[in-house]
Amino acid sequence: MLENVNYLIRPEKEEERARLKAEQEKLGVLQMKIKEHNVPVLVLFEGWGSSGKGTLIGEVIHNIDPRFFKVATFTDRTEEEKRYPFLHRYFATIPEAGKFRFLDSGWMDEVTRGAMNGTLEPDEYKKHVDSIRRFERSLTDNGYVVIKFFLHISEKEQKKRLDALEDSKDTKWRVSKFDRFQNKNYDKCAKIYEQYFEDTFFPAAPWYIIDAKSKKWAELQILETMNQAIETALQNASLSVPIPQNMFPLAKTEKLADIPLEGKELTEEEYREKLDSLQAELRELHNRLYRKRIPVIIAYEGWDAAGKGGNIKRITESLDPRGYEVHPIASPEPHEKARHFLWRFWTRMPKTGHIAIFDRTWYGRVMVERLEGFCSENDWKRAYNEINEFEKELHDGGAVIIKFWVQIDKDTQLARFTDRQNTPEKQWKITDEDWRNREKWDLYEEAINEMIAKTSTVYAPWHILESVDKKYARIKALSIVVEELKKVL
Amino acid sequence: MLENVNYLIRPEKEEERARLKAEQEKLGVLQMKIKEHNVPVLVLFEGWGSSGKGTLIGEVIHNIDPRFFKVATFTDRTEEEKRYPFLHRYFATIPEAGKFRFLDSGWMDEVTRGAMNGTLEPDEYKKHVDSIRRFERSLTDNGYVVIKFFLHISEKEQKKRLDALEDSKDTKWRVSKFDRFQNKNYDKCAKIYEQYFEDTFFPAAPWYIIDAKSKKWAELQILETMNQAIETALQNASLSVPIPQNMFPLAKTEKLADIPLEGKELTEEEYREKLDSLQAELRELHNRLYRKRIPVIIAYEGWDAAGKGGNIKRITESLDPRGYEVHPIASPEPHEKARHFLWRFWTRMPKTGHIAIFDRTWYGRVMVERLEGFCSENDWKRAYNEINEFEKELHDGGAVIIKFWVQIDKDTQLARFTDRQNTPEKQWKITDEDWRNREKWDLYEEAINEMIAKTSTVYAPWHILESVDKKYARIKALSIVVEELKKVL
Repeated sequence: MLENVNYLIRPEKEEERARLKAEQEKLGVLQMKIKEHNVPVLVLFEGWGSSGKGTLIGEVIHNIDPRFFKVATFTDRTEEEKRYPFLHRYFATIPEAGKFRFLDSGWMDEVTRGAMNGTLEPDEYKKHVDSIRRFERSLTDNGYVVIKFFLHISEKEQKKRLDALEDSKDTKWRVSKFDRFQNKNYDKCAKIYEQYFEDTFFPAAPWYIIDAKSKKWAELQILETMNQAIETALQNASLSVPIPQNMFPLAKTEKLADIPLEGKELTEEEYREKLDSLQAELRELHNRLYRKRIPVIIAYEGWDAAGKGGNIKRITESLDPRGYEVHPIASPEPHEKARHFLWRFWTRMPKTGHIAIFDRTWYGRVMVERLEGFCSENDWKRAYNEINEFEKELHDGGAVIIKFWVQIDKDTQLARFTDRQNTPEKQWKITDEDWRNREKWDLYEEAINEMIAKTSTVYAPWHILESVDKKYARIKALSIVVEELKKVL
Repeated sequence: MLENVNYLIRPEKEEERARLKAEQEKLGVLQMKIKEHNVPVLVLFEGWGSSGKGTLIGEVIHNIDPRFFKVATFTDRTEEEKRYPFLHRYFATIPEAGKFRFLDSGWMDEVTRGAMNGTLEPDEYKKHVDSIRRFERSLTDNGYVVIKFFLHISEKEQKKRLDALEDSKDTKWRVSKFDRFQNKNYDKCAKIYEQYFEDTFFPAAPWYIIDAKSKKWAELQILETMNQAIETALQNASLSVPIPQNMFPLAKTEKLADIPLEGKELTEEEYREKLDSLQAELRELHNRLYRKRIPVIIAYEGWDAAGKGGNIKRITESLDPRGYEVHPIASPEPHEKARHFLWRFWTRMPKTGHIAIFDRTWYGRVMVERLEGFCSENDWKRAYNEINEFEKELHDGGAVIIKFWVQIDKDTQLARFTDRQNTPEKQWKITDEDWRNREKWDLYEEAINEMIAKTSTVYAPWHILESVDKKYARIKALSIVVEELKKVL
């Protein structure tokens, strides 16, 4: 693919200047459209060492209001960054609606660099490429414009540039060992780049190879491509996208109505006894997973008043407070709503050795957001797969994922609502919204059944906690957590 | 002060159990009051190595709903953390309104540890202590409950605990070299702790020395103290606090009305020429400050339509995009409003070698928040000093701070508003709010005059940019930035 640049025909000086001016002005106009239509634009600059990524980003952003874009660079992962899944730091830097994000190299560089210097095993490479494909597709599916540039220069040109940089005291530091290595192994590196283009090329986010020998000419290619990509995206903004079929192995599940609730209870005595022994066991396991650096994600969903809060408390009571965090999830704030719906969860993921407990989760997308119309039908229908992919990423990163649905029947909910209403200390727990949601019980039940059926993957299955007797549900939750942790310890 | 524990009289077993139970229940009730009244509570656990901080935090939080608190721990600064001012990571972890934050050691540990092992010079120690005093006072002034515990054990008890930990394979890793060092130099360390207590004791956030020999007894002392502190804080919630006098050297300033605007203009030719040479110079300086790792903060305030955006653009055009970020500041989002008003600025501060440009700033507190009643009179009157302290922290951390007020007269604003209204591409820039603010011009002018007079410290003075001719203002801004950077390079 790198020979593609041979097909590009550089215009004459005067024509180049005129076209450049036109494109610069066009980008100035398009930035306002981007803002007006709330489109997020992610522009990736990759390329050979010394191909001029930073300089060209500098040229491009001249045409954009500084309040509408951000630039990010990535270096070798810090020790801290190594404790998060591969995609974590990249997902964290996606732009918000109406703004640009320019990346001075990113996930491509990390993966190809690893392949070049041999620190990334072929199967790890393949895993990362799968992650990247899903990541980019999920962004474009969610309305992100993703534009990927690769700045190409020849072996000779690269050598010339590196030599020139090293000649001056002021610029010497810019030449890294890796740059030299790359130049010496140019053909081998070119093959790795080309393999990567093939691996990650898809119509919604294609690769654009830019002839980067001349700065002006490179800028023209980039601006023409960007403007065209943005215009297309604006035209297609309201189009629905295909809903990917599920590709992940699913566990067998049951409909909520078929799950018996009666008889699922414990006496106070049984409860105390099991609680003590399970909590002691969990305390010990937490210590071990902390030292073995395993990240754990516990996700709670359930009917209002099903007993999520008390259930979570029985888990956290046995955990070292320095090693876990509880995330209560409410409706998204403006800066969260302005990004991919998973962004606010990606940024809350635990590092290795830590436990993150979510009180409500990313499944809001296929429950409340679906039923209240907070997202389009295309959005929530696509979300089952997006969520399965998300959890796959976490699982592949070594995380244990435990998902609980806390289940009660409609009468039990009514009794608890009434109790909350009548007890002064509990009144904060009940709102008009709870009553409104209750009226939609049947619609919710249908949505929940679909959710459980479609997202019970074998690596992150749903567990039902029968919670008419809260004691029973707490012990069941503790048992499952203990069991799942034992599997990995 | 450590002998204070001698005055504490441990109750008999039975009484202890009864009092403990009562306090646990009380905390359960108080957590709801905290939530209801939107009070943030910061609880600091400091103490000797192996004094049981983690365990005791674990006991205390048993009584709190896991959704209402978070626990944080700090370790030695990572390379990344070293690139921010001393208070940065601590300010970032303050609790939000209605919630608890427990810290398993924090700024005290960092400072005393440095003093103990000799890595912190006495003058650095003094600087940090000043920062801490201001930090804690600013929190309590802003309605934070700050409770500081020190868990005290004797030299003998500490030795016994360390030996016991080292005896078991499973707990051996918990004993650090520093723990042993501390035990061997117990008296010297005790002196350093006592000095720190004296240095950082003040009525709104006093130190509580806890006798930590027995876990139950320590828990009782902690709960009684916490509950009492919270109750007092709830009673005092609506009280105003004293407004500290300015302690920082101020630069001489003028009232806006006394600053001539006529004649402050440039021809297109002069402008082009100066723009080119200043931008070239700034480009070069940015490179040098990146390598010398100096952080730079450029703050823009000014009348609506004064020309902030275009002015910022002329600065950023000459900067390497990988080394700066522009932060447009709008009204705070819910999670920002729930914290100290400076939190959202602290968390946006640049690391060493980077430039952060703020399009509107923390001065909103003494302009729009003052005039629209978004905060109390006591709040904005206190803010001048809080802001001076904030900028002092940044300055002491090595940052260059450049503050611009972009100045125009009322007629110029009217002309620009009208132009925006009549030009389709500019209409997004003008809102009803702009017109409403314009009606309050005189009130704003008074507030701005007060702001400039009170916050033009010698380390962070205001610069007025006369912007009736935008070209003039841009060149003046560039000249000032270049000049200020030259001073430090």
